[in-house]
Amino acid sequence: MTIVEMMESIGAKARKGADALRDASGETRTRAIRAMAAKLRESAPAILAANAEDVAGATALVDRLRLDPQRLEGAAQSLEQVAGLPDLVGTDLARWTRPNGLDIARVRTPIGVIGMIYESRPNVTADAAAICVRSGNAVILRSGSDALRSSIAIHEAIAAGLVEAGLPADCVQIVPTASRDAVGLMLQGLDGAVDLIIPRGGAALVERVSREARVPTLGHLEGLCHTYVHGSADPGMAVAVVANAKMRRTSICGATETLLIDRAAAPALLPAIAAALDGCELRGDAESRALVPMKAAAESDWSTEYLAPILSIRVVADIGEAMAHIELYGTGHTEAIVAEDEAAAELFLNRVDSAIVMWNASTQFADGGEFGFGAEIGIATGKLHARGPVGPEQLMTFKYIVRGTGQQRP
Amino acid sequence: MTIVEMMESIGAKARKGADALRDASGETRTRAIRAMAAKLRESAPAILAANAEDVAGATALVDRLRLDPQRLEGAAQSLEQVAGLPDLVGTDLARWTRPNGLDIARVRTPIGVIGMIYESRPNVTADAAAICVRSGNAVILRSGSDALRSSIAIHEAIAAGLVEAGLPADCVQIVPTASRDAVGLMLQGLDGAVDLIIPRGGAALVERVSREARVPTLGHLEGLCHTYVHGSADPGMAVAVVANAKMRRTSICGATETLLIDRAAAPALLPAIAAALDGCELRGDAESRALVPMKAAAESDWSTEYLAPILSIRVVADIGEAMAHIELYGTGHTEAIVAEDEAAAELFLNRVDSAIVMWNASTQFADGGEFGFGAEIGIATGKLHARGPVGPEQLMTFKYIVRGTGQQRP
Repeated sequence: MTIVEMMESIGAKARKGADALRDASGETRTRAIRAMAAKLRESAPAILAANAEDVAGATALVDRLRLDPQRLEGAAQSLEQVAGLPDLVGTDLARWTRPNGLDIARVRTPIGVIGMIYESRPNVTADAAAICVRSGNAVILRSGSDALRSSIAIHEAIAAGLVEAGLPADCVQIVPTASRDAVGLMLQGLDGAVDLIIPRGGAALVERVSREARVPTLGHLEGLCHTYVHGSADPGMAVAVVANAKMRRTSICGATETLLIDRAAAPALLPAIAAALDGCELRGDAESRALVPMKAAAESDWSTEYLAPILSIRVVADIGEAMAHIELYGTGHTEAIVAEDEAAAELFLNRVDSAIVMWNASTQFADGGEFGFGAEIGIATGKLHARGPVGPEQLMTFKYIVRGTGQQRP
Repeated sequence: MTIVEMMESIGAKARKGADALRDASGETRTRAIRAMAAKLRESAPAILAANAEDVAGATALVDRLRLDPQRLEGAAQSLEQVAGLPDLVGTDLARWTRPNGLDIARVRTPIGVIGMIYESRPNVTADAAAICVRSGNAVILRSGSDALRSSIAIHEAIAAGLVEAGLPADCVQIVPTASRDAVGLMLQGLDGAVDLIIPRGGAALVERVSREARVPTLGHLEGLCHTYVHGSADPGMAVAVVANAKMRRTSICGATETLLIDRAAAPALLPAIAAALDGCELRGDAESRALVPMKAAAESDWSTEYLAPILSIRVVADIGEAMAHIELYGTGHTEAIVAEDEAAAELFLNRVDSAIVMWNASTQFADGGEFGFGAEIGIATGKLHARGPVGPEQLMTFKYIVRGTGQQRP
């Protein structure tokens, strides 16, 4: 079987799986996700053995790749959390009656078949499967080659859970090869079988998706997040929020990468912020360096998502300059302002066109769990269909159901 | 100036227009749409003169192209109707407080810059402009060459209305040339200036969009709508609904193109339906032809959107065969069932995955105005972002505004 034949067969099976999943009851979907969690626990030895092989062969990002009993238990608990979320398939978004008596309902429905292309975190395999099943969507998983053995082992447990709940194993399939051709074929849509591609990965994947995709995509692109300290900021809050936004975890997409600080506040505040950023490399513009000794920021620093303990710092004249910097260099993910001046804060919140804008809070809160969504498959940085944290609700579409009594249009 | 330079300049101006439109008040947007309507009336002589030139040069679809004082007054009234719709920019879709005190709002925002590519109906120029302004989006209009003079004249009135309301004329721009290269450049996104493309046109445009688009699209594809008469249908209702669904207006996308009828009901009902379809050419399968004399349907009839007084007819064994036919040949637009059996109707409404599914009503109700949306730019047949009638609300995205008091993530 050629790779084309294999992928088209996967696509056709996914379409059938999507029909079964959509037509199943919400209770069946819940039972399936719980069974997936149980099978994940039962399969821990096999999964950890497969993961050890992946880790042994890995060249980079080993920490993101490695599983241990705790992380696996965390993945199982995360599935149970998704099982506990409400099942939204067939629920009304709105319903109204027209003067002619037509009863119109806007009803949530699954999208259909989702293609998930991701890189080195094997736990995405379980998360994505659960979120797709919760929302009634079949999914085709394409794991990065580094994590392929782990992902296949996790997928085996998930498929067993589906079957135990009476659903076809094909509701969640994994591409069993590391061939990069599989990605290209998925981006072409597998002959109409794929409704939506969700890419999660670095710049090379993002670039490939934007060049090759022939089906809609829900991109999780870079998170080059900014925190802007306004002249009116409470000094203690500014120091604490910036330190948390940068250093709590530097490898997540909601970590702040660039600090913008008002010229009026910088002399008093920047030394205190720098002192709180223990272990963080600072790269500043000339004005920052005149206040705190640090490395000089290059032009490229303003557009670099470090995902590491490095912070670029720029002194700005005012909120207008801060917003212009964000518009130029931001990636539309998350930006925060620290300010006591409410008018300044509201201006920032209204004008900055990112998926998430925050006032007096750490950008590290940019997360579906922290938003109360229960689970997320990523943070969408595009503006169409969904934006911000993508949970089961965001992986649904809707249709209109119109009930009449024989109405004819005049 | 080359066409590339011209289009990139249009894109850059649209981006500035989008900022101005988003930051304006709802009252300003309303005033602008009312001023557009007034200028449209004032400019009637110039618009009708331009339209006469278009009509003189036209080779096809002359009726869709032709404007007269009544149609132009209808377009002005339609703008006033859009001006009367609520302004949704900045309104909450949802708002909640997290246990840590973070106040999270999901707030409606404009998408940004919309590229509208359409064919021979010049009134789309006014409708699209008004719906985009209502939703806070700038728009780049690319009219078909047949209607270009009319569209430019209408656009001139619209730009004057924007300026009168204090908004930049660049909020609504028209591509001033019939060059097909302009379409290609828009589909490439004009260097990041276009957020969404809305194509409205025939098969050739649809095909080009799916091949070339590098930005998200909200497609208004074919409307190959089905009406299915179930064995339990009330005979009088079936005859009346089918006749209306096919014949009220045959050129709209919600017109029924294929009738499916249960074997059990066909002998009694098909002759009555055929008699009611006066002036309509019937093309049936063998079973239909055994009941009513008519032309034989070819395989291609099942996938043809006639937009004309022609109906293809097929006798089916049961609801399963009807739904399988729709899945195979439908375009995901609108399908209706006529039935007294509620269980059969609910099965059809739940299983058929089209933007609009109807029970005991004419498919001709597939229309934003009939749904109570006030205005529509088309019927989206894709599943992402919006589905069904696209009015101002569907041309918006959202962002999350998070208000805190210095929260740091643990």
